[in-house]
Amino acid sequence: MKKTDDQILVIFGASGDLTERKLIPAVFDLYCGGFLPEHFAVTGVSRSEYSDEAYRQKVVFENEFILKKEAGEDKLKAFADAIFYQPLDTKNTDSYNTLKQRLQTIDEAKGICGNYIFYLATPPSLYETIAEGLSHVGLNKAENAWRRLIIEKPFGYDLESAKQLNSKLLACFDEEQLYRIDHYLGKETVQNMFVTRFANSIFEPLWNRNYIHRVEITAAESVGLEKRGGYYDSAGALRDMVQNHLFQLVALVAMEPPVKADAESIRNEKMKVFQSLRPYTKEDIKTNVIRGQYLGSKVRGEDLPGYREEEGVKEGSKTETYVAMKFFIDNWRWGGVPFYIRTGKRLPTRVTEVVIHFKPNHHHLFAHDKSLSNAHNTLVIRIQPNEGILLKFDMKIPGAGFRTETVNMDFHYDELTDVYVPGAYERLILDCMQGDATLYSRGDSTESAWQFVDTILKAWEEDDIPVYGYPAGTWGPEHADNLIEGENMTWRYPCKNLTDDGNYCEL
Amino acid sequence: MKKTDDQILVIFGASGDLTERKLIPAVFDLYCGGFLPEHFAVTGVSRSEYSDEAYRQKVVFENEFILKKEAGEDKLKAFADAIFYQPLDTKNTDSYNTLKQRLQTIDEAKGICGNYIFYLATPPSLYETIAEGLSHVGLNKAENAWRRLIIEKPFGYDLESAKQLNSKLLACFDEEQLYRIDHYLGKETVQNMFVTRFANSIFEPLWNRNYIHRVEITAAESVGLEKRGGYYDSAGALRDMVQNHLFQLVALVAMEPPVKADAESIRNEKMKVFQSLRPYTKEDIKTNVIRGQYLGSKVRGEDLPGYREEEGVKEGSKTETYVAMKFFIDNWRWGGVPFYIRTGKRLPTRVTEVVIHFKPNHHHLFAHDKSLSNAHNTLVIRIQPNEGILLKFDMKIPGAGFRTETVNMDFHYDELTDVYVPGAYERLILDCMQGDATLYSRGDSTESAWQFVDTILKAWEEDDIPVYGYPAGTWGPEHADNLIEGENMTWRYPCKNLTDDGNYCEL
Repeated sequence: MKKTDDQILVIFGASGDLTERKLIPAVFDLYCGGFLPEHFAVTGVSRSEYSDEAYRQKVVFENEFILKKEAGEDKLKAFADAIFYQPLDTKNTDSYNTLKQRLQTIDEAKGICGNYIFYLATPPSLYETIAEGLSHVGLNKAENAWRRLIIEKPFGYDLESAKQLNSKLLACFDEEQLYRIDHYLGKETVQNMFVTRFANSIFEPLWNRNYIHRVEITAAESVGLEKRGGYYDSAGALRDMVQNHLFQLVALVAMEPPVKADAESIRNEKMKVFQSLRPYTKEDIKTNVIRGQYLGSKVRGEDLPGYREEEGVKEGSKTETYVAMKFFIDNWRWGGVPFYIRTGKRLPTRVTEVVIHFKPNHHHLFAHDKSLSNAHNTLVIRIQPNEGILLKFDMKIPGAGFRTETVNMDFHYDELTDVYVPGAYERLILDCMQGDATLYSRGDSTESAWQFVDTILKAWEEDDIPVYGYPAGTWGPEHADNLIEGENMTWRYPCKNLTDDGNYCEL
Repeated sequence: MKKTDDQILVIFGASGDLTERKLIPAVFDLYCGGFLPEHFAVTGVSRSEYSDEAYRQKVVFENEFILKKEAGEDKLKAFADAIFYQPLDTKNTDSYNTLKQRLQTIDEAKGICGNYIFYLATPPSLYETIAEGLSHVGLNKAENAWRRLIIEKPFGYDLESAKQLNSKLLACFDEEQLYRIDHYLGKETVQNMFVTRFANSIFEPLWNRNYIHRVEITAAESVGLEKRGGYYDSAGALRDMVQNHLFQLVALVAMEPPVKADAESIRNEKMKVFQSLRPYTKEDIKTNVIRGQYLGSKVRGEDLPGYREEEGVKEGSKTETYVAMKFFIDNWRWGGVPFYIRTGKRLPTRVTEVVIHFKPNHHHLFAHDKSLSNAHNTLVIRIQPNEGILLKFDMKIPGAGFRTETVNMDFHYDELTDVYVPGAYERLILDCMQGDATLYSRGDSTESAWQFVDTILKAWEEDDIPVYGYPAGTWGPEHADNLIEGENMTWRYPCKNLTDDGNYCEL
């Protein structure tokens, strides 16, 4: 196991939801697992006034997301002792000096020697301000110690804002100090895709244009807005899911084998994938990108509201809650292989999966029946839920002749019962503590992904490309099926529509 | 479904064990499944005297291998009505004339029009005699009707006798009329190997020297001699299992894709495999073929007799009850890939399986630990029991870094619960009735297989190659592990030795 230096984790946005629900529980799990260094402290920072003790009450003892009972009172108390709080006005330079002194005090008391992580769990508008504030008082660099900055998503709002954010951050910190979070990359099954491809000798020979017909990636959510109306309505599915999470999945599926399994090598290969994305023209976008928005419907007797009826959504909003697109990766490996990705809210189920559709046999020895000759071998890598891997292939139906039937060979991750699966935040925070940036996005690839997505955003703004309505509880606009090339081919539907309401429409 | 002509099935050896245990029950199952033609009869033939009625009692009503209760009295009675008996002295020409007349009578009574199958379920010494007798009275050919001859195993005792048998049979029947039985080929899972290879697009690209490290085929029996002492002691494992069953499996694993899924195309490709077997020199045999014989041992408190203590075995017999060998198929696909096959009696369990060991990765991204870099992907095709398919591959162990673990993805044939799996004899008899010889051995390939095996038999006869003793209930002589090339590589052991007795020895 890698060494974890003594350090202070400084969390900006310390009174916020993310800190309470995800960050502190993740650090506590690391503590319970024995992953924290001997000398360690957390310092919460936000505008609100708390004493250390009051803050400990809030984020440890009264925090329902910490599994208190399992841990026991002693452990909880010891953990809380390492937690401090420092109020700060992000726009006030003096405030950063006060923070600097406070960290020095904690550092000396705990014997830590100057290694700090600054975790920006704040609204995106504050990222630049805080980075500048830290830099201004010299908290961005230290002799004989390291400083790291974790930036939460979203990273930018479009290509321009992402470039500007990168440039502001890089004026204060070096790229090596920056950790741009994408919690999808913290998921075990996402990382496992990388391992499955490159730890085995049987997949890589098939993993190219000679054997793969198309690649399909789905990230479906069954929930609607969940109180995120204000943010979501100004973002939409393309920014919220595609630019970051789905493109990271695409990169993992499509990348070349890296030189080494380290951050720089892997991120170099991912970058090459983004660089190889075939740019869309305005015409391409009309035919290759489908946007949708969910409508009200009745599912199992319950009335589900349409998107425009949700709290925080502007009247007549055209924000997309669904995107499906087809694109190409113009390189030697993938030339001519279409990639299909889709994501949406209020779909029939929650599922994230990568589906590799292999080409059909070229010699149909057993296809007396024409429909059989379209049978494809399929590899399904399920990211969530029921994490696992499924291979669909044909076997003989018992009896005379050689009739075939498609059967499944599968493995489920939960068969590995004796291992502890860390949560995404737990994994990502530990990686940053150890200086491993493999699972964080690098600035250049963030910009590349934005560049591709930006063309679509701009085309949509011109307002002559329809937003299709789809009833909540269905698989989105039917138009998305037309993206798939090939007779009788559709997306993979892990389950049926929940409603038969026929109220698909153009909004 | 193919058409099945009206016909008479004539069984020689009608009073024997095979007829009662396997053949009549198989025909009855075909009858119950509605696979028999409208006009059909069975005529039992052997030296014994039975009336039709007495024979029906013996092979139908009193036959414990027929599931009488399930079928019901009416069905049983109707089936029995189609069964006749005719005594015959195989060495007496007149006797064949009587048979001819009797068949004509049955034929006319049933309205069958002259299609006959002659099934030789007799001792091998009678195959030539009966073929000649049938030919002599003109039962071998007919205008406007077909005649077929099924020959039970063993087909020959060595290359010379197999050649002679072929030549005698071909003097009386054409190759197209001959059906040499190998009941292994009647097994669904054996045929499924052919389908699995060629119905899917993902296996064939990997199925060659570039990706496969070695192929291993095991046919293990847990039983001992089971009253077959007399026959077995003059045959041995090489003749009893390797020349026929195991080589047929080798051919199915190694063959090129055939032009069509028909008898001639498939048998042409199998023949090419036999023609490509690299011949052994005497020296090769010493180092590449291991023979063994089981010794007495104690398993779970029970004393198991050694081979030489079994009934019917000659004193000091050197007959092998175990063979393991390594050989090469010198063609473009398999150049340099070792094939390993083994079979034996009194091994720890009954299992027949084909194991494809893929080459390890050439770039060990995740192998910080040297032992991991030897991990192979493995495809196990289980013929019996628990018929199915298993793929061993590596996945990520949850947690920091990229440690891997081998997991299994599997499919079991019994998951296809709604289909009826016909028995091997049922399948083979129906195929012959329909004129499909795909699952029968062709004369030339039988001789080719004998040619390869003959060299070994001759080398063993010289008596300077050891027979190794192994305790009953173990996986055979330890020397067999030395056949496997590569560090830390062994045969796949689906279970452990049943006994720890260390009495391995050279006999």
